[in-house]
Amino acid sequence: MLFEGSEKKCELIVDSSKINLRELDKEFWKELVAKCNATILSTISNEHCDAYLLSESSLFVWKDHFLLITCGQTTLIDSIVFFLETHGQEAVRQLIFQRKNEYFSYLQPTTFFDDVKKLKKTIDGEAYRFGKIDGHHNYLFHINKEYKPTNLDKTYELLMYDICPKCIEVLTKENQTKEVLRDFLALDKLIPGFIIDDFVFEPYGYSLNAIKDEHYLTIHITPQESSSYISFETNFDLVEKINIPLEVFRPGSFDLITFNSDNIPQLIAQVPDAYTDKRKVQGELGCGYTVTFSHFYKHVQETLAPYKLEEF
Amino acid sequence: MLFEGSEKKCELIVDSSKINLRELDKEFWKELVAKCNATILSTISNEHCDAYLLSESSLFVWKDHFLLITCGQTTLIDSIVFFLETHGQEAVRQLIFQRKNEYFSYLQPTTFFDDVKKLKKTIDGEAYRFGKIDGHHNYLFHINKEYKPTNLDKTYELLMYDICPKCIEVLTKENQTKEVLRDFLALDKLIPGFIIDDFVFEPYGYSLNAIKDEHYLTIHITPQESSSYISFETNFDLVEKINIPLEVFRPGSFDLITFNSDNIPQLIAQVPDAYTDKRKVQGELGCGYTVTFSHFYKHVQETLAPYKLEEF
Repeated sequence: MLFEGSEKKCELIVDSSKINLRELDKEFWKELVAKCNATILSTISNEHCDAYLLSESSLFVWKDHFLLITCGQTTLIDSIVFFLETHGQEAVRQLIFQRKNEYFSYLQPTTFFDDVKKLKKTIDGEAYRFGKIDGHHNYLFHINKEYKPTNLDKTYELLMYDICPKCIEVLTKENQTKEVLRDFLALDKLIPGFIIDDFVFEPYGYSLNAIKDEHYLTIHITPQESSSYISFETNFDLVEKINIPLEVFRPGSFDLITFNSDNIPQLIAQVPDAYTDKRKVQGELGCGYTVTFSHFYKHVQETLAPYKLEEF
Repeated sequence: MLFEGSEKKCELIVDSSKINLRELDKEFWKELVAKCNATILSTISNEHCDAYLLSESSLFVWKDHFLLITCGQTTLIDSIVFFLETHGQEAVRQLIFQRKNEYFSYLQPTTFFDDVKKLKKTIDGEAYRFGKIDGHHNYLFHINKEYKPTNLDKTYELLMYDICPKCIEVLTKENQTKEVLRDFLALDKLIPGFIIDDFVFEPYGYSLNAIKDEHYLTIHITPQESSSYISFETNFDLVEKINIPLEVFRPGSFDLITFNSDNIPQLIAQVPDAYTDKRKVQGELGCGYTVTFSHFYKHVQETLAPYKLEEF
């Protein structure tokens, strides 16, 4: 069963003196995620944010910004358009829309290019591709408004492909439990003290939101061998922790995307030696963020056998 | 202008005591290529084969086999089905159908999986993927019939991506001439003594068929920067020559696919040091061929800038 795990993502920042996003009622967010064909499964909150676990990924809402990540065949762009139609553009300080290159793009209702065309009918901006067409790459659109993020505003995305056979076994086991998966993911080491909200999908798949003070982590797992993928995104400093997911999932390859990280060399120094750093792209964008994209893959000396396809 | 240069390919081998393919009239081949939405532009012949240059790539016809390569949005599978419907399966000794992973698969009318499903209604076989889903890969289907190729039956496919800026300049120049391109491709060194048939497309794009005795070469060039791609396929020994196209096009990456080559180590030794050998896949398939797939990319130390997208 092919599933496009890789996500569309939106971060929308508002002037909270004009609109406090946390004061919008839950019905609004329900409607917003419905626009892209997702539903809210559960919610956790702390003094800083509300974290919604969705049928397809996650929504985090802070006073002055929200982060929406949706996978599969969802049309995240429609949620953005809905927000802009409902609340106007005046309070919007910045809007960043990202989309990973897809491996089953023929299953998608739209392309990144379609999405940006739709958005540009309402609001102007610029679009970039990080990485080459014939390799891993990530598309990013931002609006043309000057914005200066705070010093604390950093994001790390770790997008892992081709996870190890043992992981696939654990993650696709029938009737797998949250407890086993939390343990498998080493959450006690990764996020001690975080409030956790997670969900095991049928027949497999796992999503997690976790928050502590200003920090969040979200993990989404597509474990099937034919299209295995794991996304991991956080705003805590990943230098001390990047090894944990890499050791748990032992991916064949991964992308590391950062926004305003000031410790890329230290971060890359933590990546196990088995990985080759294939590609680095960096841009200081007009939206106020310095964005980096790096692709790593595990070098395999041996000659592989072809993969026999059975899905006919 | 995005164009999916990468091709679908079919090699169909018959028992020439039952059907001599060269005795089929040109109307038949015209109809066969029309089935996949291609047309014949021109033809060259020698005592061994007829080589047709198509509006989308090439058709080579020998007494006992034909090779059809088509790019863009053509549906090569329909040409295969047409052949089987017209001439039956009894004379067919082997049939191999290949398809490269596409970068704009949302523009394709079918997927490899759709194609194989269609073919399997008529004739049974097995399908493989050479390479990982999230990297360059090539799909191959062959029918379930025992077949033993001759010792001379070897094929080399060199599929090049992301060609150098100077190449793009030469290859996309308005009103570019065959003479300039033949010189640029170093055809005098590459294929001395071959009969050549080539075509310069509007606004750009170039195709070449060349034959000499039992040997053939076919080159198809999609030069536009947004999706540059060059395919190069031959049955002459590539060891002495692989450097010529690699030095002409200086691709950012390439796939090398071989059928029954007995000199892979010597071939790989000729690849310039600038390229990293990322992936090797090898299979001894039930169709009688040992097929290898290797992916190489040029390692770039520097950090790249993001690519600004203007197509909105």
